[in-house]
Amino acid sequence: MKAEIITIGDEILIGQVIDTNSAFICSELNQTGIKVNRILSVPDNKDEIIDAINTSGKDVKIVLTTGGLGPTSDDVTKHALAEYFNQNLVLNNEVLEHIRRFLHTRRLKLNERNRAQALLPERCRLLPNEFGTAMGMWFEKENRHYFALPGVPHEMKAMMTGHVIPALIKQFELPAIVHCTIHTAGIAESVMADKISGWESDLPQNIKLAYLPSPGILRLRLTASGTDKRTLEGQVSYQAEKLKKIIGTGIFGIGHTTIEAETGSLLRQSRSTVAVAESCTGGNISRMITSVPGSSDYFRGGIIAYDNDVKIKMLGVDKRKIERYGAVSKHVVIQMAEGVRKKLKTAYAIATSGIAGPAGGTAEKPIGTVWIAVSCDEKTFAMVFSFGNLRETNIMRASVAALNMLRLIIIRSKNRNSG
Amino acid sequence: MKAEIITIGDEILIGQVIDTNSAFICSELNQTGIKVNRILSVPDNKDEIIDAINTSGKDVKIVLTTGGLGPTSDDVTKHALAEYFNQNLVLNNEVLEHIRRFLHTRRLKLNERNRAQALLPERCRLLPNEFGTAMGMWFEKENRHYFALPGVPHEMKAMMTGHVIPALIKQFELPAIVHCTIHTAGIAESVMADKISGWESDLPQNIKLAYLPSPGILRLRLTASGTDKRTLEGQVSYQAEKLKKIIGTGIFGIGHTTIEAETGSLLRQSRSTVAVAESCTGGNISRMITSVPGSSDYFRGGIIAYDNDVKIKMLGVDKRKIERYGAVSKHVVIQMAEGVRKKLKTAYAIATSGIAGPAGGTAEKPIGTVWIAVSCDEKTFAMVFSFGNLRETNIMRASVAALNMLRLIIIRSKNRNSG
Repeated sequence: MKAEIITIGDEILIGQVIDTNSAFICSELNQTGIKVNRILSVPDNKDEIIDAINTSGKDVKIVLTTGGLGPTSDDVTKHALAEYFNQNLVLNNEVLEHIRRFLHTRRLKLNERNRAQALLPERCRLLPNEFGTAMGMWFEKENRHYFALPGVPHEMKAMMTGHVIPALIKQFELPAIVHCTIHTAGIAESVMADKISGWESDLPQNIKLAYLPSPGILRLRLTASGTDKRTLEGQVSYQAEKLKKIIGTGIFGIGHTTIEAETGSLLRQSRSTVAVAESCTGGNISRMITSVPGSSDYFRGGIIAYDNDVKIKMLGVDKRKIERYGAVSKHVVIQMAEGVRKKLKTAYAIATSGIAGPAGGTAEKPIGTVWIAVSCDEKTFAMVFSFGNLRETNIMRASVAALNMLRLIIIRSKNRNSG
Repeated sequence: MKAEIITIGDEILIGQVIDTNSAFICSELNQTGIKVNRILSVPDNKDEIIDAINTSGKDVKIVLTTGGLGPTSDDVTKHALAEYFNQNLVLNNEVLEHIRRFLHTRRLKLNERNRAQALLPERCRLLPNEFGTAMGMWFEKENRHYFALPGVPHEMKAMMTGHVIPALIKQFELPAIVHCTIHTAGIAESVMADKISGWESDLPQNIKLAYLPSPGILRLRLTASGTDKRTLEGQVSYQAEKLKKIIGTGIFGIGHTTIEAETGSLLRQSRSTVAVAESCTGGNISRMITSVPGSSDYFRGGIIAYDNDVKIKMLGVDKRKIERYGAVSKHVVIQMAEGVRKKLKTAYAIATSGIAGPAGGTAEKPIGTVWIAVSCDEKTFAMVFSFGNLRETNIMRASVAALNMLRLIIIRSKNRNSG
């Protein structure tokens, strides 16, 4: 079963607004077993909208539009659809009453623009809008279904999950689709591809693999399609288990998750606490950890030691070590981690010191050189990394690498304690 | 001059990834005077890519693709383009050398997949990729220009601004368009609309105004179009001056800038330093300040005092004040700011303490309640804010409000000293 999405709105084509609606609709349809074939964004223009519908793929059974249903004169989607389906617009008194009531609860009076929203194509099913005055519309023509949804995200979302998806499930016998996303850290895309090439070539034909990289993180997405959801879930979890054996602790989570959430869970499970001493990451590790609700259970705080003086006075780093080895060195980053762990009395501590760029690089320590240390009761581990030239990416990659290092060390000590 | 964008990637069509590249490209093209006619998202499939190119509008002179240039087997854009333009893929030794060097600086070895990235269509101009191994490609056929860019946002962005836009400006005679973005903080959208309505209705017809809101910040973008760039620049700066008089210090910058960069410049100009003591913002203010290259000139560091114990021991907050007024209070946030200023010996200090959510709200202090303090030589200022229910937005709004408060206090003391 194939679908197409048409997003309508000048604001998207001038780059003023990022189209987040499409991703939501795609995800909803995909989970229902409907494949989105293409997404097309067109301006608020009747001819362009009709043209977009006309060029949709022959085997497409569902066309969804979003946007252009508002009360202002630049909203023309309704007119385009009426023309396309050769229908007149007629006043729908029931809808008019809904609009009047809706505005009334917001202490607004019905004006001519709002009244015009009750003018609707004469032969289409209407989809109620819980959060706004723009009705959704459902047309059927030559065995193809057309849905017109509003562009305001929360209105569209409620209509999609409350009306469109149930209608589609009723209308069609849909294939089953199961997704599984495996999150990994610390393994480059090309290295991963080599590592799992044998496994990948053995994948059954109904399972597809996708690589989704972001700074420091690589997600592997498995998509299985077939007829029985249970069977697919079994297939996918069997393949995920196989991957776990190949990749091992390189995998930090499965499903909807993040490295900060997973590392946080490990800390909570082991009733441990953590503190950070950040130089080149400048607070980003702290920000990531505290972006997780409830992180106050395990995160005590940290010291942003941007200035060397702060490293010396607040973290107890030996001034002579900075003079001898430089602030970006194994010696200093170890003292930073140990210093903050002692000061904040935590089980674990993370420290970073590096050259984020764009200035400060040398032949010996080029931009992107980052030392990371993780300190725990047993010892302090330190590693050097070479990231890229881009400040923002360096900070992000260093933060992810630091959290991943902490994660691996927690797992290590867990295994030791249980072994 | 019309353009079309084709974004390539299964991850977009299953809704796993939001396509942010298109908005960036649209905005860049729009500012150059090129109108994007449609955006089409298609899967990683050769036939679909070719089909998308074939269905592009007749009067379209520029087709841009993003995505599908990676080293893995699901990346097929290059193959689709080679087929469309009837070209062979040949090994480009120069590119191979670039890839080898690029991987080397990351301590990675060249493998077969990376080597395959140096196989490129025999007759296209290559666009260098500063941040990755995927080259950009530029084809010309029947008076139409085709650009293939990588899908990784920072790689795409650098290629777009560094190579594609300059190439387009050289290639075509484009109409003159002048943009001017005025950044404001601390003024709500509806308040701003009232404030500037008189000015707005007096705007000449060739100048358009757009409101671009983001958490805590409202940008006003003026777009003037015409034939002579100089004239437009004069018009736009005249209108910007008028706005400055109406909005005053609510404006923090003009052009490509951020509140962290502008506040940083003020600190540098006054040869001052700053430190932070963050509770609810959890490192985000620090991250924002240090995202600016060269921020080590004025940022000494900070303390993330997530735990009350850290507030007491590291910042010298009086335990009894926490017990009596709560950690989210005027008394505590003032002590936090004064504590970190003293410890880190800076001219200014920022402190935050609030309830980010989703838990922790009370009737008296609901989620979104945030106290912010800024301490300087003269005195310590404190204010309470009521943000929303969303953790992420609260953290962002509190961080922006804190930086804005610091900015206004620096300006105030500057005016005093010069007055």
